[in-house]
Amino acid sequence: MVSYVKIPSHLKPSDPQGPDLLTQERNLASFDVKELTLVLYGIKDLERYHTILKIIENDPVFDKSNIYFMGRNELFEHAIKKEKRLVQLIRENKWKVEELQFAEWFLDMPGPFGAHRGMFIPTLIGQGTKEQKEKFLVPALNYQIIGCYAQTELGHGSNVKGLETTAIYIPETDEFEIHSPYLTASKWWVGGLGKTANHAIVMAQLISNGKNYGPHPFVVQIRDMKTHLPLPSITIGDIGPKFGFNSTDNGFILFEHVRIPRFNMLSKFSQIKKGTGEYINPPNQKLSYGTMVLVRAIIISGVRVTLARAATIAIRYSAVRRQFIDKDEPKKLEDGSIVETSILDYTMQQYRLFPVIAQSYACFFTAKMMVNLYTEYTKQSSSGDYSLLADLHASSSGLKSLTTTMAVDSIEDCRRACGGHGYSSFSGFVKFYQDYLPNTTWEGDNYILTHQTARYLLKTFRQVTSHKNPEIYASQSNKNPTISYILQYLNEPNQKCTAITPSDFNNHEIQLRAFKHRVAFLIANVVDQIDNQKKSWNSMLVEINRISRAHCQYLLVQNFITALHQPSEDESLRMLHNSPALKEVMTSICNLFVLHTMEKDIGDFLESEYLTTPQARLLRIQVYNLLKEIRPNAVSLVDAFLIPDSLLCSALGRYDGKVYETMIDWASKEPLNGMTLDFNPNNDTFIRKAKL
Amino acid sequence: MVSYVKIPSHLKPSDPQGPDLLTQERNLASFDVKELTLVLYGIKDLERYHTILKIIENDPVFDKSNIYFMGRNELFEHAIKKEKRLVQLIRENKWKVEELQFAEWFLDMPGPFGAHRGMFIPTLIGQGTKEQKEKFLVPALNYQIIGCYAQTELGHGSNVKGLETTAIYIPETDEFEIHSPYLTASKWWVGGLGKTANHAIVMAQLISNGKNYGPHPFVVQIRDMKTHLPLPSITIGDIGPKFGFNSTDNGFILFEHVRIPRFNMLSKFSQIKKGTGEYINPPNQKLSYGTMVLVRAIIISGVRVTLARAATIAIRYSAVRRQFIDKDEPKKLEDGSIVETSILDYTMQQYRLFPVIAQSYACFFTAKMMVNLYTEYTKQSSSGDYSLLADLHASSSGLKSLTTTMAVDSIEDCRRACGGHGYSSFSGFVKFYQDYLPNTTWEGDNYILTHQTARYLLKTFRQVTSHKNPEIYASQSNKNPTISYILQYLNEPNQKCTAITPSDFNNHEIQLRAFKHRVAFLIANVVDQIDNQKKSWNSMLVEINRISRAHCQYLLVQNFITALHQPSEDESLRMLHNSPALKEVMTSICNLFVLHTMEKDIGDFLESEYLTTPQARLLRIQVYNLLKEIRPNAVSLVDAFLIPDSLLCSALGRYDGKVYETMIDWASKEPLNGMTLDFNPNNDTFIRKAKL
Repeated sequence: MVSYVKIPSHLKPSDPQGPDLLTQERNLASFDVKELTLVLYGIKDLERYHTILKIIENDPVFDKSNIYFMGRNELFEHAIKKEKRLVQLIRENKWKVEELQFAEWFLDMPGPFGAHRGMFIPTLIGQGTKEQKEKFLVPALNYQIIGCYAQTELGHGSNVKGLETTAIYIPETDEFEIHSPYLTASKWWVGGLGKTANHAIVMAQLISNGKNYGPHPFVVQIRDMKTHLPLPSITIGDIGPKFGFNSTDNGFILFEHVRIPRFNMLSKFSQIKKGTGEYINPPNQKLSYGTMVLVRAIIISGVRVTLARAATIAIRYSAVRRQFIDKDEPKKLEDGSIVETSILDYTMQQYRLFPVIAQSYACFFTAKMMVNLYTEYTKQSSSGDYSLLADLHASSSGLKSLTTTMAVDSIEDCRRACGGHGYSSFSGFVKFYQDYLPNTTWEGDNYILTHQTARYLLKTFRQVTSHKNPEIYASQSNKNPTISYILQYLNEPNQKCTAITPSDFNNHEIQLRAFKHRVAFLIANVVDQIDNQKKSWNSMLVEINRISRAHCQYLLVQNFITALHQPSEDESLRMLHNSPALKEVMTSICNLFVLHTMEKDIGDFLESEYLTTPQARLLRIQVYNLLKEIRPNAVSLVDAFLIPDSLLCSALGRYDGKVYETMIDWASKEPLNGMTLDFNPNNDTFIRKAKL
Repeated sequence: MVSYVKIPSHLKPSDPQGPDLLTQERNLASFDVKELTLVLYGIKDLERYHTILKIIENDPVFDKSNIYFMGRNELFEHAIKKEKRLVQLIRENKWKVEELQFAEWFLDMPGPFGAHRGMFIPTLIGQGTKEQKEKFLVPALNYQIIGCYAQTELGHGSNVKGLETTAIYIPETDEFEIHSPYLTASKWWVGGLGKTANHAIVMAQLISNGKNYGPHPFVVQIRDMKTHLPLPSITIGDIGPKFGFNSTDNGFILFEHVRIPRFNMLSKFSQIKKGTGEYINPPNQKLSYGTMVLVRAIIISGVRVTLARAATIAIRYSAVRRQFIDKDEPKKLEDGSIVETSILDYTMQQYRLFPVIAQSYACFFTAKMMVNLYTEYTKQSSSGDYSLLADLHASSSGLKSLTTTMAVDSIEDCRRACGGHGYSSFSGFVKFYQDYLPNTTWEGDNYILTHQTARYLLKTFRQVTSHKNPEIYASQSNKNPTISYILQYLNEPNQKCTAITPSDFNNHEIQLRAFKHRVAFLIANVVDQIDNQKKSWNSMLVEINRISRAHCQYLLVQNFITALHQPSEDESLRMLHNSPALKEVMTSICNLFVLHTMEKDIGDFLESEYLTTPQARLLRIQVYNLLKEIRPNAVSLVDAFLIPDSLLCSALGRYDGKVYETMIDWASKEPLNGMTLDFNPNNDTFIRKAKL
């Protein structure tokens, strides 16, 4: 890229230099970074990582050096080029999902084909018949047709049942008529629809013989295959600029009595009989829940790398950035001269950043657990056993809500912890944050989702208590965490924390009891208000949210502790267990995650009367002790995440610590610097003209 | 603006229609909206408001209909045009500060002249001598020279003492030599520097006869007045894209031994003697603090309108948006047909949004108090009495930190409460949030600022306790809130809350005692750890932040309650006191602010043992009661803020409730919709070409 401003080449940043500072930090590590990286990725995926990264980084189409200077149109054009190149690479290298996941992660650009790969194809696979797959899936896999998934409407997001688009069966012609009766029925937010897709899976109210069978998926061709213009009676557009995701053409579409063959209703589960229009029920509703669980497990491992990325930038920059002199312990250079203190040495900075590292590792272990549970569930369900599903679905809903909100908030916390420069696009936080943000809304709004979790928790509590002999639940309690902590609470409703020194809070038993007792206490409280005090569901929504949060925080804690201590077949966990150094640092991280989470919601733990107020103060002191304990490993802990510079795309977070050289180099390339502004002070007129 | 997509004109949103819903809401109001608006603005300012708004809204240069579609360069060019037009209007209409404030608020665009008006001119006024004002201020006021304020450097933000740029006095030629010894010395983030300014006030280390006298302000011409190109030995550039503020050319500048006359050092307070280079001390350091207090008072009234703007959008859209049917109390239309429930009826939505309304009113009363205190202080200081300053400065620092962070978080909370559409630029939240964000960093980083507040609180506590007979402080305690709550705590360290029913928490005495006791308890705790347990300042930074927060929350509560009850000369307050209807609704709002604030930090109040855990539950119940109480007035409470549609620039928040019509109308104007994408499925090539 061309530089518009000549920076005096003799100028260097004042000492100490960033690279030296990061080297010093890395020398402090108590563990082998490569070893931890291997635990995080596993041998096979780490190989894939390097293979794919090399291909992506060496491909000029994927060059990001211009990315922060692009407006909406350029960004979209750029994204289209990337998508096209990606398709070629998929073919050339015969990439499977595993490889593609890495490629998409490194590309880091929500693209016009995202919904095609992420929604259109999976829906065809999941809900299409053999014939439908031949007709739609095969060309889709060859990118001969590009699809999108049209569910959300201008007037309806969360409440899918309320969708206004109709699909009426016409027996005479054996067709469906897709129609948008109102402006609010316009499909909205549909990724890839605005400019790119020529097919859509449209969720519409299935109506046959005057009866409404609720929303069902229909495949509709929306654009001409030659001219790529919208087909007759179809109105399509891009919905306009967004907080982020501007490389994607989220679109809207309106249908005016558009006819499609009956064949186009995805019919693996339910269908309409030819002529009679008789509706045939889905064999098993539960099946669809299963995939939801997996999607959410994937979102949570997404949270893990998201937090890792944010922490990497903030931690490295905090090690390089120095501000003020700490009078109590001033920092000295070799020559004895006093320099300003690295902001990573300030407790407040540690308090803001280290928990984000801990959250990332917590999500790593929980995502792992969810994938394992999902695999176990699919085994069982194939033999008709769905006992795991209810708990799994409830937990995954709440976890998606809790962790994606945590991720968004933590990115922003890390950004603000970078001071003024965090506000610059060059920080690597801006586009990153803006593109990640929708995770709190899609795949279930984070508030609405907690209702599902809470309903299950209340139901389970009622079952366990109402049952004559709760003992019979004991059998399930080892498999079902919810039943287990409810039983424990019922047997011992007045548990007290036994900690008498700050370090007692490192005791995992004390930690687990705190979270179990708190969530059971909150559930009991809500059940009482609804069942005995006859409070309405609506009046309890805030509490509903609290119990879902408490349940999922418990799961994160439980999974982290289990991962550290329970013998496991899992390759990563075995590597972890076999390395005392790793186990030690992960234990500190686990303790920080648990105690910082408790401290943030200390009110709950005090209210449940498990903790006394003096104990709350001890707990806070122990959090500060853990920050000190983790400080020497901070940089190495984020290095272990192995987020490549080409992905970080950050002047502040780069591995080599050349923060200031990069900031000014990138600034010199700002296109505005290529323009001259003619300035006439006498009549204050301005004429802007391009210099190039 | 041209529309690229033809939307079928016969389509309407499904019933009920937005305008009808808002009319229903407005009919529920228990008070006169116009009356409350008058309280907020005062008669004079409300007249100004309407005069200025008319001028701005009728001027084509200020048209915003295109704003969300602009890239960086367009946005900057647009901003320059606006600035130019604004200067003309200032001259034509002889606008004073009062008028200009409204104009800038309505324009809602951080412009290249912002620093000229906001920093350059005020600094010349505050720190220039008569001669310097003649030379620089007069042409600046005529926009013959355009200035910026160059303080922050690439390597130094918060720590001004650590600035690297030097100004060395050269007796031989009676000049200063401005120099950037390192890359990190580059001035950075300087508003209006990148492209616009031809002069800068440069903060540099004043060095004379080898002695460093610390940072001082120097006026430096940086661009040629004819060619507008940087002067020799000066490197200037725009620092590149940012999270927001992209209509402003924040810039960087490097000096290579640039000579300026001694005259250019702003010398109202301190100066260098000709030839000898002798340094003459500033008469009174304190003076500068005074203006800081005022600047922060202005920021806090800025917070008030910021919160008002966010709440207005979210509340109105929540009244229009309907989702799900509340089974316990389903909503019916006149014809008896059941419709989905307005999301404003869901407790969780009320819990997320109503506190933002309350925060806005809280900031209104506190900003008012600060301005009054500042006026009182300037009176006293003119007669040499600075007794008010310490408390005023400490409180204003902490309040700036607390309220701007509150504002940023609340904008985002309101945005997320708007579901998917909140993510669209058309929501009115995106640019709004992005441009407001820097408030948490500039005028003192929000974390660093709390140190100043805490230092004062600890010092005051030590003074009061160490003093033989604290009674003598009692005299000051009515003027000094800090001394007053410290004394109260020392006399009664074991105060307990007397509430036994939820509604008892509406008692202002109980509320005030809770906040006083909590802050004093936290301060006592920190003093003990530092003085007796010899903890280092650094190890206490998290607690430091807590006590500043606790102190400032108390001030917000105290000011709100005082404003409601204490007889006052203030025009607005008298109007409020004379209207029972207004007083009633403001009391509910005040109670919600106080109790919601308590609930959010409930841990503090439990730890201070003022509250018992059963009382914490009562308090939460009272918060829910207040939400119910406020619900009918919600829309009218935001209407009273009188934020014009032209400022909201929001499809969701417009006064008439035509949400969906506007969303689709604006989307049809997205320039991407004016492009066609030629799509060849056989070789998946893409060629984008303009249709127009």
